[in-house]
Amino acid sequence: MAVFSPFGGAVMLLIGGLLGAPSLRLVASFPVARSEVSSDRLVDLTHTLDSSTIFWPNIPAPYGNFTLETLDDTLSDQGYYYRSKAFRAAEHGGTHVDAPSHFAKNGSDTGQLPAEQFFGPAIVIDVTQKVKLNPDYQVTREDINEHESRHGRIPSGAFVFMNSGWTSKWPDRVKVFGSADPANVSSLHYPSVHSNTTHFLIKERDIRGLGVDTPSVDAAPRDNAHPGTHIALADSNRIALENVANLNKMPAAGAFVLVLPMKIAGGSGGPVRILGVLSQ
Amino acid sequence: MAVFSPFGGAVMLLIGGLLGAPSLRLVASFPVARSEVSSDRLVDLTHTLDSSTIFWPNIPAPYGNFTLETLDDTLSDQGYYYRSKAFRAAEHGGTHVDAPSHFAKNGSDTGQLPAEQFFGPAIVIDVTQKVKLNPDYQVTREDINEHESRHGRIPSGAFVFMNSGWTSKWPDRVKVFGSADPANVSSLHYPSVHSNTTHFLIKERDIRGLGVDTPSVDAAPRDNAHPGTHIALADSNRIALENVANLNKMPAAGAFVLVLPMKIAGGSGGPVRILGVLSQ
Repeated sequence: MAVFSPFGGAVMLLIGGLLGAPSLRLVASFPVARSEVSSDRLVDLTHTLDSSTIFWPNIPAPYGNFTLETLDDTLSDQGYYYRSKAFRAAEHGGTHVDAPSHFAKNGSDTGQLPAEQFFGPAIVIDVTQKVKLNPDYQVTREDINEHESRHGRIPSGAFVFMNSGWTSKWPDRVKVFGSADPANVSSLHYPSVHSNTTHFLIKERDIRGLGVDTPSVDAAPRDNAHPGTHIALADSNRIALENVANLNKMPAAGAFVLVLPMKIAGGSGGPVRILGVLSQ
Repeated sequence: MAVFSPFGGAVMLLIGGLLGAPSLRLVASFPVARSEVSSDRLVDLTHTLDSSTIFWPNIPAPYGNFTLETLDDTLSDQGYYYRSKAFRAAEHGGTHVDAPSHFAKNGSDTGQLPAEQFFGPAIVIDVTQKVKLNPDYQVTREDINEHESRHGRIPSGAFVFMNSGWTSKWPDRVKVFGSADPANVSSLHYPSVHSNTTHFLIKERDIRGLGVDTPSVDAAPRDNAHPGTHIALADSNRIALENVANLNKMPAAGAFVLVLPMKIAGGSGGPVRILGVLSQ
């Protein structure tokens, strides 16, 4: 889509990472001048919010959907056009962040997350083949080992994402929740991250956050399942990212990610804009 | 606020700009590793959304304030804590973006803004002294000339901000709107940007967007005033940023800015997270 007119000045915005380990250097750069935009270096990892946006089941009305109401849509007396709208939604729908306060009584809320925590190397664990055999697949320590053996050690401060291929199911509720009856939360089937894996990523890799392309970092609550990944992240004051889009367009390693949440005081989570920045 | 534990690996994230004009080079860098965070290189230009957040007057209930409702705040049967909330608000409140569709019938909506337009050099025009003599002050061409004579030509693709010192009045409605009766929009007094200045910045400097620390880029609608700055931006498919916070902590030039809006399909605007990145 063409927005903003082209211009001559070549403005380059460089985003790169230099790791303490001299053997590892992550660099991404992209131009911000319209005339030089290479859009394949920027990946919008955010689903658009609209009436089809998927929320966790059983959120009470009127918050179980993203609703946009038109307040003004008029031609003014002075001859100019004017449009304004208003929205309502639960915090935990679409591409969103779980603040630590979602599962930790004294965890940071959405508005308290500091800006220096909104950037990091992006690591993408590909489980697209494994989930075809098991839609309840949970990312394992072995998946991390495999990834590191191919792509190097996960750097400190990274955002680690599970790519299960789920982005192509969006926003089909039956497919995304893997159930003909998504309102019944114990009937849901979607991939997530095993809590053992999450504990490892926190303690041994000091990740900044954990993201998935599915509705939850934990499996659906059945058989008395414990939301161990949520709790591990919250208790260590880290964030979860859910319903992340377009992870299939990200490399396994070497890219960066910008994670900028809506600044909600007291929020347990909320909408977040996530951009992947590919290395040049 | 301490969030996320320190770690050893020194991860550097470099954000810089290289202008076509060889004499101009903007570079900002900051570390993302907790152990090296220099928080004075990052400026959160976003007011927190809460019940005191200021919206444009006369927005109908229940959208004239930011409202957060608690859906869950419980200790589960399994012994873990769980909290979730929901929100509602008009699009044009707090620190927010005006999409071109706010004032242009066929302008891009919030969800259509492309990611490559979310970055640019940050230019801050200081009018803090001038507004003390005139709270209805509008940024002039002369202010731009003065700024450029001191700090160099405004680069293409920049976000230009007016710093009127208004951030210190937030969130006092009477002070921010300069009126004892903020509900009466013709009684409002706050600084803005003259439409002649905006036309110049669009045509001669090819700015990416225009931001102010006040409630509107245009003066309050009285004496049949025309919202010429909004219209000029919308008609050229550029964005406006209003109620921008903390511009007093930004340099006149040399910094970068990240502007990531909530991705609302069909939105005429919406909450935006804006971060300034200071040069090292």
